Amino acid sequence: MSSQVRVAILGATGAVGAELLELLESRNFPLTHLKLLASPRSAGRTLQFRGESLPVEAVGEDSFKEVDLVLASAGGSTSKAWASKAVEQGAVVVDNSSAFRMNPDVPLVIPEVNPEAAAKHKGIIANPNCTTILMAVAVWPLHQVQPIQRIVVATYQSASGAGRRAMEELKAQAQAILQEQTPPTESFPYPLAFNLFPHNSPLNDQGYCEEEMKMVNETRKIFNDPQIRISATCVRVPVLRAHSEAINLEFAQPMSVATAKELLANAPGVRLVEDWQANYFPMPIDATGKDDVLVGRIRQDLSHPSGLEIWLSGDQIRKGAALNAVQIAELLVERNWLKPATAMMAY
Amino acid sequence: MSSQVRVAILGATGAVGAELLELLESRNFPLTHLKLLASPRSAGRTLQFRGESLPVEAVGEDSFKEVDLVLASAGGSTSKAWASKAVEQGAVVVDNSSAFRMNPDVPLVIPEVNPEAAAKHKGIIANPNCTTILMAVAVWPLHQVQPIQRIVVATYQSASGAGRRAMEELKAQAQAILQEQTPPTESFPYPLAFNLFPHNSPLNDQGYCEEEMKMVNETRKIFNDPQIRISATCVRVPVLRAHSEAINLEFAQPMSVATAKELLANAPGVRLVEDWQANYFPMPIDATGKDDVLVGRIRQDLSHPSGLEIWLSGDQIRKGAALNAVQIAELLVERNWLKPATAMMAY
Repeated sequence: MSSQVRVAILGATGAVGAELLELLESRNFPLTHLKLLASPRSAGRTLQFRGESLPVEAVGEDSFKEVDLVLASAGGSTSKAWASKAVEQGAVVVDNSSAFRMNPDVPLVIPEVNPEAAAKHKGIIANPNCTTILMAVAVWPLHQVQPIQRIVVATYQSASGAGRRAMEELKAQAQAILQEQTPPTESFPYPLAFNLFPHNSPLNDQGYCEEEMKMVNETRKIFNDPQIRISATCVRVPVLRAHSEAINLEFAQPMSVATAKELLANAPGVRLVEDWQANYFPMPIDATGKDDVLVGRIRQDLSHPSGLEIWLSGDQIRKGAALNAVQIAELLVERNWLKPATAMMAY
Repeated sequence: MSSQVRVAILGATGAVGAELLELLESRNFPLTHLKLLASPRSAGRTLQFRGESLPVEAVGEDSFKEVDLVLASAGGSTSKAWASKAVEQGAVVVDNSSAFRMNPDVPLVIPEVNPEAAAKHKGIIANPNCTTILMAVAVWPLHQVQPIQRIVVATYQSASGAGRRAMEELKAQAQAILQEQTPPTESFPYPLAFNLFPHNSPLNDQGYCEEEMKMVNETRKIFNDPQIRISATCVRVPVLRAHSEAINLEFAQPMSVATAKELLANAPGVRLVEDWQANYFPMPIDATGKDDVLVGRIRQDLSHPSGLEIWLSGDQIRKGAALNAVQIAELLVERNWLKPATAMMAY
């Protein structure tokens, strides 16, 4: 099985698509065929993979025949339009969009946290939101040992979360402002360069934006813990790539800083980054391009007897999206879970 | 009295000094004489005030003779060196540094919060830290009505907090990175442009940096509430000017969002900025140059029955420093508190 995986990337020309391509090559993913799919607008381009130029094809009705695994990163509406067709044609879809994440028939998987959930898939496995993945990877090793009752998190999210064009726009905005010109704002509603603003996803009646509710609901689903209380404030900052998060944790019982550090130093997907002498902790430029989530500044919370403060930076495109998807794909291959375990669902 | 105030600015050539000068002019402060003082390095320059060119003098032993009020914004060591000399020579010092803030003989004053504390001065009144001022102005109107038991705050602090040269360095860094060159790092330990990092002030044994402990200890002193529990995570972000803060509040009893909004809409020094349809909330570019602290995104905390989340942006140089100092000076003049109320202290 593992020597015969035929893979398609849906959304190959985006920021996450480029990273998927790079990861499949650098991690030597056991694929026999790779198909690059995108919208008709991007079709006709070629992308490099293992020394070959592969054409980008427009996604269509027959795109998923003779495909075992689809890595989808083309946004929610594209996933909604094509995922069930891919499943009907026999493929398993690892979907990076938010389209299916909260569907009870779709496992929401971080391989370091809940790999077993992937076994129960019915054709689609969802990749969590980037901010959720980064937080969950850092918090899960602690939660397993000493249950966390409440999380209050504030994020510092880079332009990459809004895609490749947003990263270019941030640079163009900075250039314009340095030249005392009006910055372009196409990807974002307000200038991001030398500025910041609350995350511009739609707001619910309680005033939480979609990005914040993803952190609340997805974390509960991934941890299989509907009781854990979470509040998030998501903020876009003028960083090109890699998100950071200030996370306040309340445990049922106190956890010492020493215990937390030991757990994090040995946790999969985490690198403990703390140099207290040099005042050096995780920051986006160091997290960029890295597989691990950088975690540091583990402090006893001065305001709560069972509280800890932690700080992290993680590559939003890599572990926050493409790497996690490829890790799910590797899990499916290794454990022979690539074929639907139960009857195929209609999504 | 109020028609005879002779004022000196110590640190006239810095970012806060420039703003002090502007505010004394634009607010028509009742001064009869203005002396500009700085380090010998900056002496000899001239600055404009009310259409006149005023010379910048090197601060010296006799600088404070015939001065009633000193606005000091030249850093802690300069304040420690000169404040007591100014007091000995009969002046009252409003000090913007951290040198005297936690001294029990020195009132720590935000005019919107604890104006009466200024009456008890013994020659020196301290201006709180910028992050503390912005948070306290927004939180005090709520705390007065329904006591807050715990605050968890994450900051987004601009380059201006590190001074005028830091602002220029941020721009130079951005330009260098856009040209794929190595960014200069003199004011900051790490590149700030397109990056961010935990606040680089010295860390204590508990892992909190000085900036964070200022928010904890100064807020307690200003609120005259040693019991309020506070934890802060302070982060430098690549914004030129104006700090932002994500503040989680736990009240003794629930406060409704409607009540909080009404209180904040009517609070002095606060402007409620919320357009939920447009997803428009406080952001640094809108707070820059404004007197008010912009507060918005008032939400019921999903993770705590008595919790509220609030978000703010405020001009770090203005209300976070120079404006608050000038407001203290105005308070001293208006209430005739300019002369020490009790025996002069030796600091």
